[in-house]
Amino acid sequence: MTVKQLSLPELADACVRLGVRGVGLWREPVAAYGLEASAKLFRGTGLDVTSLCRGGFLTAIDPAERAAALADNRAAIDEAAALGTDTLVLVSGGLPPGSKDLVAARERVGDALSALAPYAASRGVRLAIEPLHPVFASDRCVVSTLDQALSLAERFPASQVGVVVDTYHVWWDEAAPAAVARAGASGRIHAFQLADWVTPLPAGALLGRGQLGEGCVDLAEWCGLLGSAGYAGPVEVELFNAGLWAGDGVALLEDTARRATPLLA
Amino acid sequence: MTVKQLSLPELADACVRLGVRGVGLWREPVAAYGLEASAKLFRGTGLDVTSLCRGGFLTAIDPAERAAALADNRAAIDEAAALGTDTLVLVSGGLPPGSKDLVAARERVGDALSALAPYAASRGVRLAIEPLHPVFASDRCVVSTLDQALSLAERFPASQVGVVVDTYHVWWDEAAPAAVARAGASGRIHAFQLADWVTPLPAGALLGRGQLGEGCVDLAEWCGLLGSAGYAGPVEVELFNAGLWAGDGVALLEDTARRATPLLA
Repeated sequence: MTVKQLSLPELADACVRLGVRGVGLWREPVAAYGLEASAKLFRGTGLDVTSLCRGGFLTAIDPAERAAALADNRAAIDEAAALGTDTLVLVSGGLPPGSKDLVAARERVGDALSALAPYAASRGVRLAIEPLHPVFASDRCVVSTLDQALSLAERFPASQVGVVVDTYHVWWDEAAPAAVARAGASGRIHAFQLADWVTPLPAGALLGRGQLGEGCVDLAEWCGLLGSAGYAGPVEVELFNAGLWAGDGVALLEDTARRATPLLA
Repeated sequence: MTVKQLSLPELADACVRLGVRGVGLWREPVAAYGLEASAKLFRGTGLDVTSLCRGGFLTAIDPAERAAALADNRAAIDEAAALGTDTLVLVSGGLPPGSKDLVAARERVGDALSALAPYAASRGVRLAIEPLHPVFASDRCVVSTLDQALSLAERFPASQVGVVVDTYHVWWDEAAPAAVARAGASGRIHAFQLADWVTPLPAGALLGRGQLGEGCVDLAEWCGLLGSAGYAGPVEVELFNAGLWAGDGVALLEDTARRATPLLA
């Protein structure tokens, strides 16, 4: 999604050329290119599919909406399996219209995980709960901290449910480093994503993620924290940025890889 | 600031007519109208000045900038005393340019409080640390939670330093209710402000606070929490909303008072 302007073949080609060994995919471009075609494309290039984004949106109260959300998440699990990735990222969903109860909404996420985690495990897929920054608590994700995500994940085996650590969402939280250590100790860091925090935010707050090094997040410190927590998996970069999408995608990927490389050392 | 479009005499007049018994002021309109004239205006109408906003912005590293910030805060303390309010609201300030260290920035806030709290006490003014929503952590306020604000306040006597509970900033935080109870038990809730959370946020995130009842914050629940914590002080409404400022100020004040009244029961 960092280089949304690239087609999947362009993305695969540029990754191979730059020595980027894996790529996290989103469902929409995969569906547009075709699930089987996408799987074949990345298998053929030798690129790992590090994760699939995203399932989730599990906070509905209405039974029909809940059933539809569960069905959609099972489809996402199937898609992850077809793409050969073991990790499906879940964004919990926001408050249903008219509701003011974050605690109850989080409980509905937990209930939905009970239904989804065994199914995911049967397909060889781990669920990765992503806490989003509290700016999104009402409309996108009622899970705002790593501690909350981890508390939900810990109801299940680590092989079934873990968390996503995305620097953009957790950088501000003084409790996050301890949560990273706790998640690492139990093998629950299922994905690690980098983005920087820059201001001012654009309207709607969604498409203002900063290119690595452009903002105020100490990304080297976060990479160190993840290393200290025993995380040795892929490091994804996920920038939602309308300005970056407006430019050349290959140049953006090159620039991003150049900025990421020293952090990974 | 909820009715920024009103002059101070218009504000005072409308408050008296509506039975609003107190008003929180901001330094800029007070300075524009004149400090002594403002003090006289509100004394003459019998309205309490519930608080003055704002001091703070205490995170600079540069010695000259720090000295200037301390001087400005002493001036704000003097202004609070002149207006007859016992409460100066402090917004901590964001990260200095180039810094990525939230912890060190919070420590500089603590250091500055050590210099300011005794001076404020000598003028009969309490300092009230306001945690702002984490969306403002980088550019406006490195104190993002009530727990962080309270940890800073607890270095000083409760009569000198306490916290502001603003629903807009803390509604998302599952740890906030316990922090309210802790703050109440030690007499450190120095101000209580209401605003609702509505989305989408406007660009810059600052001017999108929701009118009471328009958003997803359970304001009645928060008023109950403050009551249970023993808070019996004034309840302020602080809406920064460019849309609301564009309309008639007296009608806005009337509507706001109408919405607030049942919450205060």
